[in-house]
Amino acid sequence: MPTLALIRHGQSQWNLENRFTGWVDVNLTAEGEAQARKSGALLKASGVAFSQAYTSLQTRAIRTLWLTLEGMDACWLPEEKSWRLNERHYGALTGLNKAETVAKHGDAQVTIWRRSYDTPPPALERDSPYHPANDARYAGVPAEELPATESLKTTLERVLPYWEGTIAPTLTSGANVMIAAHGNSLRAIVKHLFGLSEDEIVHVEIPTGNPLLIELDDALRPVTARYLDAERAQKLPGA
Amino acid sequence: MPTLALIRHGQSQWNLENRFTGWVDVNLTAEGEAQARKSGALLKASGVAFSQAYTSLQTRAIRTLWLTLEGMDACWLPEEKSWRLNERHYGALTGLNKAETVAKHGDAQVTIWRRSYDTPPPALERDSPYHPANDARYAGVPAEELPATESLKTTLERVLPYWEGTIAPTLTSGANVMIAAHGNSLRAIVKHLFGLSEDEIVHVEIPTGNPLLIELDDALRPVTARYLDAERAQKLPGA
Repeated sequence: MPTLALIRHGQSQWNLENRFTGWVDVNLTAEGEAQARKSGALLKASGVAFSQAYTSLQTRAIRTLWLTLEGMDACWLPEEKSWRLNERHYGALTGLNKAETVAKHGDAQVTIWRRSYDTPPPALERDSPYHPANDARYAGVPAEELPATESLKTTLERVLPYWEGTIAPTLTSGANVMIAAHGNSLRAIVKHLFGLSEDEIVHVEIPTGNPLLIELDDALRPVTARYLDAERAQKLPGA
Repeated sequence: MPTLALIRHGQSQWNLENRFTGWVDVNLTAEGEAQARKSGALLKASGVAFSQAYTSLQTRAIRTLWLTLEGMDACWLPEEKSWRLNERHYGALTGLNKAETVAKHGDAQVTIWRRSYDTPPPALERDSPYHPANDARYAGVPAEELPATESLKTTLERVLPYWEGTIAPTLTSGANVMIAAHGNSLRAIVKHLFGLSEDEIVHVEIPTGNPLLIELDDALRPVTARYLDAERAQKLPGA
């Protein structure tokens, strides 16, 4: 029975400043580093033997993976990094303080952008320093696939091909897999695995520093699911 | 013109204790971590844009790579880890203090094991905790390929297939490549690239925390080679 661990990165500098981050490559705070180490300790204590790790192209998720692997004494695990596991792209909201955004666009509109399933914020201009076409790490991605804004729906649509084409076949081969990623790219995977509705997934908040361990059957349907720090977690709908 | 950077890991706990380490998975000391960060700063200042990193399955080389990438603001670089880039396996000397080994086997014999090109120490017993067949990270390696002892010659013989099959094709495709590894696996690559004799390579000591930057022609022959911290490095024979 293959096991999947989902690890959401801990606090970043812009989380702390309450700014829309998305694809900006902000680093972890010391608190975020401590959360990653805690994930490592929890996963080591779980006794599950992992053989493959996946993460995004963003420093805060990659360093969460690295610190987690250090805590597990498993730095040698193969890692694969993909832009498809990146956080949701917040378009023209990127870099704005959340309070300022509310002042500018109104609370109702901002809530729609943050909490609706399929309404993206306005797109980022092509010449913005935050546009992914201006970042060398995305040089290998076809220009038409790089987002300038995303809803949760379009985030899910770019995560799923990587799940189907890369992660799911690894699990099907019998390997236990870790994914260190972001609130919304992990929501995409959770929605897909648990068959959640659009309304259900927008209310799921995956906690940081608290790996979600999912045992799957041979068809990759969840059999059991639990947060390793059970006291600090919301129950998953349907789990 | 593809560029290759070779990075030798910094001080580990057993370097500090003067013990034969080889394939034992000893971690970096704080000094070793600082050396890795220094490598990152030097590589960032070099201005070379890398697109692929390779390392061994050993924590001290992997963490050297990670800290180097952090220093370069390039955590997103693809990484591949292979047992073929591991340190030379010191066989039955593994874990022994070097002074104790001299007391037991005599200075002349120990010098032969350390400095000859092709004389391996006695092999490690199959049931030793230090034998790689007892370590989960090598589960995917055919048992007959796992060493129980190595000379510099046999180290080179297991490094080269990875160079030829994986690293060289990446360089030939035009990518700039980083390798974070160990004194002897890097010697294997240096001997091969510079066409050094057996006598020359045993006298080459690659410094830690000081990346060796090599520009190659299309046939992967070295055109220029320099240590980024020029003051702290021995000149390479023939470079």
